[in-house]
Amino acid sequence: MTHTDVSGLTQLGSKTDLPASPETAVLERVPFGHAGSLSVVRFTAPEFTSLCPMTGQPDFAHIVIDYIPRDWLVESKSLKLYLHSFRNHGAFHEDCTIDIAKRLVALLAPEWLRIGAYWYPRGGIPIDVFWQTGAPPAGAWVPDQGVAPYRGRG
Amino acid sequence: MTHTDVSGLTQLGSKTDLPASPETAVLERVPFGHAGSLSVVRFTAPEFTSLCPMTGQPDFAHIVIDYIPRDWLVESKSLKLYLHSFRNHGAFHEDCTIDIAKRLVALLAPEWLRIGAYWYPRGGIPIDVFWQTGAPPAGAWVPDQGVAPYRGRG
Amino acid sequence: MTHTDVSGLTQLGSKTDLPASPETAVLERVPFGHAGSLSVVRFTAPEFTSLCPMTGQPDFAHIVIDYIPRDWLVESKSLKLYLHSFRNHGAFHEDCTIDIAKRLVALLAPEWLRIGAYWYPRGGIPIDVFWQTGAPPAGAWVPDQGVAPYRGRG
Amino acid sequence: MTHTDVSGLTQLGSKTDLPASPETAVLERVPFGHAGSLSVVRFTAPEFTSLCPMTGQPDFAHIVIDYIPRDWLVESKSLKLYLHSFRNHGAFHEDCTIDIAKRLVALLAPEWLRIGAYWYPRGGIPIDVFWQTGAPPAGAWVPDQGVAPYRGRG
Amino acid sequence: MTHTDVSGLTQLGSKTDLPASPETAVLERVPFGHAGSLSVVRFTAPEFTSLCPMTGQPDFAHIVIDYIPRDWLVESKSLKLYLHSFRNHGAFHEDCTIDIAKRLVALLAPEWLRIGAYWYPRGGIPIDVFWQTGAPPAGAWVPDQGVAPYRGRG
Amino acid sequence: MTHTDVSGLTQLGSKTDLPASPETAVLERVPFGHAGSLSVVRFTAPEFTSLCPMTGQPDFAHIVIDYIPRDWLVESKSLKLYLHSFRNHGAFHEDCTIDIAKRLVALLAPEWLRIGAYWYPRGGIPIDVFWQTGAPPAGAWVPDQGVAPYRGRG
Amino acid sequence: MTHTDVSGLTQLGSKTDLPASPETAVLERVPFGHAGSLSVVRFTAPEFTSLCPMTGQPDFAHIVIDYIPRDWLVESKSLKLYLHSFRNHGAFHEDCTIDIAKRLVALLAPEWLRIGAYWYPRGGIPIDVFWQTGAPPAGAWVPDQGVAPYRGRG
Amino acid sequence: MTHTDVSGLTQLGSKTDLPASPETAVLERVPFGHAGSLSVVRFTAPEFTSLCPMTGQPDFAHIVIDYIPRDWLVESKSLKLYLHSFRNHGAFHEDCTIDIAKRLVALLAPEWLRIGAYWYPRGGIPIDVFWQTGAPPAGAWVPDQGVAPYRGRG
Amino acid sequence: MTHTDVSGLTQLGSKTDLPASPETAVLERVPFGHAGSLSVVRFTAPEFTSLCPMTGQPDFAHIVIDYIPRDWLVESKSLKLYLHSFRNHGAFHEDCTIDIAKRLVALLAPEWLRIGAYWYPRGGIPIDVFWQTGAPPAGAWVPDQGVAPYRGRG
Amino acid sequence: MTHTDVSGLTQLGSKTDLPASPETAVLERVPFGHAGSLSVVRFTAPEFTSLCPMTGQPDFAHIVIDYIPRDWLVESKSLKLYLHSFRNHGAFHEDCTIDIAKRLVALLAPEWLRIGAYWYPRGGIPIDVFWQTGAPPAGAWVPDQGVAPYRGRG
Ligand SMILES: [Ca+2]
Ligand SMILES: [Ca+2]
Ligand SMILES: [Ca+2]
Ligand SMILES: [Ca+2]
Ligand SMILES: [Ca+2]
Ligand SMILES: [Ca+2]
Ligand SMILES: [Ca+2]
Ligand SMILES: [Ca+2]
Ligand SMILES: [Ca+2]
Ligand SMILES: [Ca+2]
Ligand SMILES: [Ca+2]
Ligand SMILES: [Ca+2]
Ligand SMILES: [Ca+2]
Ligand SMILES: [Ca+2]
Ligand SMILES: [Ca+2]
Ligand SMILES: [Ca+2]
Repeated sequence: MTHTDVSGLTQLGSKTDLPASPETAVLERVPFGHAGSLSVVRFTAPEFTSLCPMTGQPDFAHIVIDYIPRDWLVESKSLKLYLHSFRNHGAFHEDCTIDIAKRLVALLAPEWLRIGAYWYPRGGIPIDVFWQTGAPPAGAWVPDQGVAPYRGRG
Repeated sequence: MTHTDVSGLTQLGSKTDLPASPETAVLERVPFGHAGSLSVVRFTAPEFTSLCPMTGQPDFAHIVIDYIPRDWLVESKSLKLYLHSFRNHGAFHEDCTIDIAKRLVALLAPEWLRIGAYWYPRGGIPIDVFWQTGAPPAGAWVPDQGVAPYRGRG
Repeated sequence: MTHTDVSGLTQLGSKTDLPASPETAVLERVPFGHAGSLSVVRFTAPEFTSLCPMTGQPDFAHIVIDYIPRDWLVESKSLKLYLHSFRNHGAFHEDCTIDIAKRLVALLAPEWLRIGAYWYPRGGIPIDVFWQTGAPPAGAWVPDQGVAPYRGRG
Repeated sequence: MTHTDVSGLTQLGSKTDLPASPETAVLERVPFGHAGSLSVVRFTAPEFTSLCPMTGQPDFAHIVIDYIPRDWLVESKSLKLYLHSFRNHGAFHEDCTIDIAKRLVALLAPEWLRIGAYWYPRGGIPIDVFWQTGAPPAGAWVPDQGVAPYRGRG
Repeated sequence: MTHTDVSGLTQLGSKTDLPASPETAVLERVPFGHAGSLSVVRFTAPEFTSLCPMTGQPDFAHIVIDYIPRDWLVESKSLKLYLHSFRNHGAFHEDCTIDIAKRLVALLAPEWLRIGAYWYPRGGIPIDVFWQTGAPPAGAWVPDQGVAPYRGRG
Repeated sequence: MTHTDVSGLTQLGSKTDLPASPETAVLERVPFGHAGSLSVVRFTAPEFTSLCPMTGQPDFAHIVIDYIPRDWLVESKSLKLYLHSFRNHGAFHEDCTIDIAKRLVALLAPEWLRIGAYWYPRGGIPIDVFWQTGAPPAGAWVPDQGVAPYRGRG
Repeated sequence: MTHTDVSGLTQLGSKTDLPASPETAVLERVPFGHAGSLSVVRFTAPEFTSLCPMTGQPDFAHIVIDYIPRDWLVESKSLKLYLHSFRNHGAFHEDCTIDIAKRLVALLAPEWLRIGAYWYPRGGIPIDVFWQTGAPPAGAWVPDQGVAPYRGRG
Repeated sequence: MTHTDVSGLTQLGSKTDLPASPETAVLERVPFGHAGSLSVVRFTAPEFTSLCPMTGQPDFAHIVIDYIPRDWLVESKSLKLYLHSFRNHGAFHEDCTIDIAKRLVALLAPEWLRIGAYWYPRGGIPIDVFWQTGAPPAGAWVPDQGVAPYRGRG
Repeated sequence: MTHTDVSGLTQLGSKTDLPASPETAVLERVPFGHAGSLSVVRFTAPEFTSLCPMTGQPDFAHIVIDYIPRDWLVESKSLKLYLHSFRNHGAFHEDCTIDIAKRLVALLAPEWLRIGAYWYPRGGIPIDVFWQTGAPPAGAWVPDQGVAPYRGRG
Repeated sequence: MTHTDVSGLTQLGSKTDLPASPETAVLERVPFGHAGSLSVVRFTAPEFTSLCPMTGQPDFAHIVIDYIPRDWLVESKSLKLYLHSFRNHGAFHEDCTIDIAKRLVALLAPEWLRIGAYWYPRGGIPIDVFWQTGAPPAGAWVPDQGVAPYRGRG
């Protein structure tokens, strides 16, 4: 059986304040015990919220992140806090989505990573943003994210 | 077998222009062959559109009308044209919905009528409006309208 | 265990031609072994088709019939043939629906009967027709017909 | 905590052959520890099969049984074997459904019982049968069975 | 046709900042043109968020409000801003939900009002809160809110 | 705004071990700030598991609890720990379900309480158990639990 | 973090009239901060409406647009106004769909673009139109549009 | 903007009788304004009906046709009449399906065409037929037809 | 139009007894009129049942068969009878599934064939079996079988 | 017909205790009668539970395993017991998932194997883990696992 080394973590298992901004949020990582296995890890965050940089009004998104770790896993509590740190941050949908992905890429240097962000409608027309670091490696198994399309009413 | 008297109709079976406004639209009726039977007739109009009276931007709704005829049925083509006549008309959601219902009540003097209007979201929060002339008569069978609730994304 | 007397049937178990019209279709019945039990029997006919009396074009409906037998059950093969007999018959939606119900009421003298007819959209607006002989008897269990509402596209 | 007396059971926990017919199947019961509580117990049997008494061909149904025990619970393994005993038994849909219910009523003398049988289509038109011993007692909570209506294809 | 008097509004049609707290948010109302009609108005807010009063972590809910206006309608933009004002406010689920409802009751003195709050899971077990001012008036039509139950995974 | 008194709690906000059995689990309560309001609180626990008292094999259920508090709310973390305490406890489905409900009734003396337990199938036939303390008080709003019926495969 | 240059925009953040026709609508663009990243942006417009060029009657469609920006993003408010400008414009389904796509291609010179238009049924048979500029670039992630197929009633 | 030449049509915009048989039905075509664009056009016909060649009983199918036009589009009203012409025509499922496809191929000489026919069950086992002229051209976008599989009851 | 030669059939159109076992069931075939067309034919049998070879208890499965005929079609009534012949036959899930497929391959010598068998859960864990004769021929169109995954309760 | 050799099994058909840990669980195998056929076997275990190694609190997952046997099948009862043996075992989601897969690979030396583990949310964000031994062999048919994505509430 596999045991993960969590000795370097500073936030897991202790009470931690909400970070004031994405810049000050601390994303942490743990060693991955199955490097080279092409495992896919998916995080689903149905509770993402940020502010509109033009009007200051809240925006909301359902975000799904898939990645194939190389040497590191993201620690899930620090990921949660990082995502919550956008709560009072203003950003456009496209920027916000890709910035999250690139921050994770910088932290983890993964084999592969993608993000799907499904934003709530504004003006009746929702925006979805889909990005990945490239085609997934051959031999990896990456299921659809399977989020239902927006359909208005009726 | 029952045969409906359609001799008084002016629009059914002929090519008809889109009415310019609800006021100029002609709603027609035909005699009902089963007066007293407590039949329920449902019209589903998933394509309703009007204009916002404040901004002039288009609004959309999925509308369902249920009624129990007394002596008259609404002629369905004239109903379609009447609903389409709101296309360039400005009205609030609550007013627009109840005005449609009351126009039909005036035309048909039905045993009972209700309207459900499921408006598309504006500012992230859709409005639904539900109105009926009163409790449905005992012994009538009135199924749920069964429209799925709005749920944003994810 | 209960055994149904089928000795009077003329169509069940033999090859039978499609009736030319509803008038010539032969609806048959068998004695009901549980008279007084307030059993509800539901027939679902997702394949109903008739002709438009104005244009001669085909119309389609999904029809559900619920009834509580008193002394008689409708024989299901004869019901199927009766419904198929509308194939080349012209009738309005409301008439067609209620005529089917009344023909069954005349044949069976049931405790109670209702019909739900869910017609395919014409001009973008489908019509549903709901009729019953009155409120269902107290103590009978009558589930919703549960047909999904029409919702257009998306 | 409650402990059920299972001392009288003959089939539970041992290997038991499939009964040859409903008549020879042994339905067993255990004392109910909460008599008078108006608890509702639901069994869902999506795998019911019998034979057509006219043609010998297999019939299938999805069956749901709800009951409010008085002094006895039906033992679930014996119920499963009883339902399987219809596998080579010929019966009409209406008879078969109500016979099952009445056998349980005779065994359990429950406060209340109902059965919903959702038969697979034959000739394109499925039959559902709904029966209960009467209106459920006031204060009992009996959710819908919620089985999706048949809808053909598409 | 009905025209709503909007002359008293201060926020609709202008750019408005996010209120700092529920206490400072300004809820506005407009006269209702159909007083006595027992119309039901439903608002669906799938984007509600507040903070946990114990930990400061974000909480999320899907909220649905139904009400029957007497003399006043709530102005929808001010409602949106009011709901957004909980973004940096700490409150328990039960309190937060009922406080929103009571604020609307104080503003509108409606015939009837109810709120359903469907909170995202914490610790694997979500909490829903349902409250109404009393039974809805006879003759009003109040459809189910129809929010899907939480079901975990699979 | 309402503030809940949490001063008497012993488990909330601290690390707590899994209780060894339902008997040793400590269920806690907090004062309810809206006594008399007929608020309904729903807990959804999709992760319930216990052991079969006959075979020692694991059983699973999806459990939903609705109640109307009088003077007390159940503290949600203690509820979670109480439910988890059945993990190594053997009990029949009917007993286990009603015992949970009665323990909550003893703790909270609520206006009303009900429990729905949707057990995973054993032998192909799942058992659901539904119980309530009586009819819900007039004027309370209690939505359906809306759990999908079991349907096997296909 | 990325910041979008919005200095060239004329419509965003101000009140703007509905354009009289597609020809007079002003589609605007903003620089894309992640050129070369193969990001996919999806717009879902469930509220598209135009007129039939033969009869003048309204047509409706649910439209989904996916594209991979090269140097420019379409500004979403101008896209909304452009789509609304078809409101009083007559065009065939196939033409209308592909004309929208080609207008965006001319504005944005994207890496890749596709459009799916799901038109409401006329005469019982809906038309869908699917077009793309070519196969999507290798390494881009383009999820299904996932719009439910039309299915009539039942 | 694109304008379709409709000058050669004989049926569109006029009242037309139901053709007596597929052989006598007149399928019409119009020039396609975007030849070479690899546009995909989908027709969904949920109302197809023919007769069983062995028994004369009605058969029903849900049919979806996808094609990539080269120089011609099929005119949709003539397609509807052609499909309706099978109403009194006897054919096996496999033959009927492929004959429809081949008739369209002969008329349109498309880049590519496929047909999916989802027949209603007979004897409990539905037949689906899927055919295409070959693999779709590279670079075309052809979504799944997405018709739900048949599943019987429950 | 195509006409199928049915002259060699012995069971179609006549009353036929249920075969006693798979070995004695007679599978029949008819010539295929479109050899070389790469047509796909799908049979959906939601009513398959056999016996467990260890315990004699009934097993159930939802089975879907797809094949591309070369010179022969399987006659559907004989297929139905063959599948029903497993009713009193004991076999393991994996064997039973692949044996059915291989019997059809032997009869039809098809271009290609696959079978998906979705067995009802035993012990809480259902088994699905998927087999095909090899990759489908290039140019054939083979949609997903689309059977919903098992998900237990909730 | 195929018959499986079960002579080496020790647990199937007898009463067996729950193993105390994954290490002591006995996974058994039976010879596969169709070696080389590229059959895919899927197990769906919606009832997996383990403990959090940090807190000792229960975790839950819905797990789906697909594999292509070479010479051996896993015996399903021993698989069930092995999965249940994690009940009192602490492990991280990623480790636990991949350890199960590797244990099966060691036992069966399959042509190919994959595992999908869909964990219940903790802290609002569920983790899914997907792993396979490599790309599936050409010519094998491996359907999607089709598990619905997590979506929070609403
Ligand atoms: Ca709609
Ligand atoms: Ca909006
Ligand atoms: Ca209902
Ligand atoms: Ca969401
Ligand atoms: Ca739509
Ligand atoms: Ca059938
Ligand atoms: Ca209900
Ligand atoms: Ca259909
Ligand atoms: Ca949680
Ligand atoms: Ca599950
Ligand atoms: Ca099935
Ligand atoms: Ca797919
Ligand atoms: Ca239908
Ligand atoms: Ca079933
Ligand atoms: Ca569950
Ligand atoms: Ca939501």
